[in-house]
Amino acid sequence: MSKPSVLVTGADGFVGSHLVEYLQSAGYTDIFATTYAESEWLSAHLPADHIFAGDLTDSDHVFAMVQKIKPDWVIHLASLSFVGDSFSKTQFVMDTNTHIQYVMLEAVRQHAPGARFLSIGSATCYGPAAVDLDPEHISEDYPFAPNNPYAVSKLTQEHLAQMYHLTYDLDVVRVRPFNQIGPRQAEDFVVPAFAKQIAAIEAGQQDALRVGNLEAVRDFTDVRDAVRAYERLMLEGVRGEVYNLGSGQGVKIQTILDTLRKLSEADILVQPDESRMRPADIPIFVADARKLHALGWQPSIPLEETLRDVLAFERQKMEKEA
Amino acid sequence: MSKPSVLVTGADGFVGSHLVEYLQSAGYTDIFATTYAESEWLSAHLPADHIFAGDLTDSDHVFAMVQKIKPDWVIHLASLSFVGDSFSKTQFVMDTNTHIQYVMLEAVRQHAPGARFLSIGSATCYGPAAVDLDPEHISEDYPFAPNNPYAVSKLTQEHLAQMYHLTYDLDVVRVRPFNQIGPRQAEDFVVPAFAKQIAAIEAGQQDALRVGNLEAVRDFTDVRDAVRAYERLMLEGVRGEVYNLGSGQGVKIQTILDTLRKLSEADILVQPDESRMRPADIPIFVADARKLHALGWQPSIPLEETLRDVLAFERQKMEKEA
Repeated sequence: MSKPSVLVTGADGFVGSHLVEYLQSAGYTDIFATTYAESEWLSAHLPADHIFAGDLTDSDHVFAMVQKIKPDWVIHLASLSFVGDSFSKTQFVMDTNTHIQYVMLEAVRQHAPGARFLSIGSATCYGPAAVDLDPEHISEDYPFAPNNPYAVSKLTQEHLAQMYHLTYDLDVVRVRPFNQIGPRQAEDFVVPAFAKQIAAIEAGQQDALRVGNLEAVRDFTDVRDAVRAYERLMLEGVRGEVYNLGSGQGVKIQTILDTLRKLSEADILVQPDESRMRPADIPIFVADARKLHALGWQPSIPLEETLRDVLAFERQKMEKEA
Repeated sequence: MSKPSVLVTGADGFVGSHLVEYLQSAGYTDIFATTYAESEWLSAHLPADHIFAGDLTDSDHVFAMVQKIKPDWVIHLASLSFVGDSFSKTQFVMDTNTHIQYVMLEAVRQHAPGARFLSIGSATCYGPAAVDLDPEHISEDYPFAPNNPYAVSKLTQEHLAQMYHLTYDLDVVRVRPFNQIGPRQAEDFVVPAFAKQIAAIEAGQQDALRVGNLEAVRDFTDVRDAVRAYERLMLEGVRGEVYNLGSGQGVKIQTILDTLRKLSEADILVQPDESRMRPADIPIFVADARKLHALGWQPSIPLEETLRDVLAFERQKMEKEA
């Protein structure tokens, strides 16, 4: 039986690029990809006529694309994803993420109504309300408490997807990922931020590793495990349902730091940095992801392996930039 | 002690106009009002320098207004409120309701940061998910299942307000009204739709009252009770919390019809109308509003009185139009 055709939006991003690689390795042959601008990475991985460069808020562009592809699956990763910056760009983040989502859903409704659509939310929607409940087991029925514009925009995306399911019976599955880590992640996330500094110290370009709050506990999943979870949701997720994506295991930022230091032969001096020392508004934030795990998915990559790969990636990047 | 100054947005609308009247009758003297276009009704009720005509998505206009007024309370009723039409105008409804909310919240944060802000959501956010739970007692912790673009836009408004509370400690209270009824409501809602037809039959202009599904059970609150609930929430609502606004009593549409017919001396022939006969996707939809009732608010106007007043209003309108 041939594999479903898959349209991946945001395919040259952190998660998208790993997803494309995984789908290829798993024998998917009809992989279509969107990217905002031309992408060297995508061109090296997919045939030119499978790559659609353009703005996903442009409905003419998107409708024509979906009409042409008529994909079996849509994995809609594209999204403005900056959290901190979103405060100064609230309306822009809200508009863009709302329009991207609406245009994609409407394109699927009109031109590929039988497609399965994966709507990517974010665990940030739970926010600080989880603290008063059980922050080590945040399940899908926890109340929403978005505390940044990005989180609000991801909730809006999710509600739109749900609305298309309820109203038009679109085959929507929703997912709320907790922290995803791995090579290629942007440096404003904690793991690459540490790894990059270690690579710089190893190269003699930096004296000490500057750190913020090390006490926070988070739920980390290797992005290469996460993309397998997306496939699992496309195969086995229940239409209309929502799933947390996480390991279900809490890891202290201190542990990330300690493990990374062990992976380096350099002597890594650690220096608390007041400017990074935001009080952790949410000390513990860990998924109850049993609903997803019950579909037959489990994370498989040990934390140390992920961190080793991130460190290797940051070292390579540093060499290339040198 | 002098009463708080109040900024009411959408003050010439169905709910807004009743709120202004109520606040005046209750001794509030500093009432400021926004309206999209010039409003004869407002001009007859408030001094000219208390009325601000303009577009609430225009941040220059709104910031200047809030800076000038520096209200103690903001009761932010303005919103695109069409449900059925929202399907053909999804992006417009989403954008407008998002921008209106964002601009108002940001104006308050910048220019009246101590103000209490009432964010008006909608019970439509619960949608069909309530059917599988207990649709006769829909409480604030029910899951969201918006099944039209309007409902999504109201959820986005609510999440934005919550975000401003969590992030900037703005004094936000959120409310989710169930069905509000009373004089001046637009004719696409069921009660004025019935009343208008009865007035037309009484005037010899129509032969029969055309009805859709009469089996649905809803939670109706007289708008003049609802505006007292808004005041109660401003006085007693807990900062950051959300409250259902409803009577907690289910009423069948058939009962509305029967009561209206009794209130007319005409012989009202009832005719099922296939075009109005949408299958009620949600047969029963009644608030658990104990959280609001615990603040000391109760509806006081009996259904029959509300229906009599709506009928009187529709008769008057018909005479004026004749």
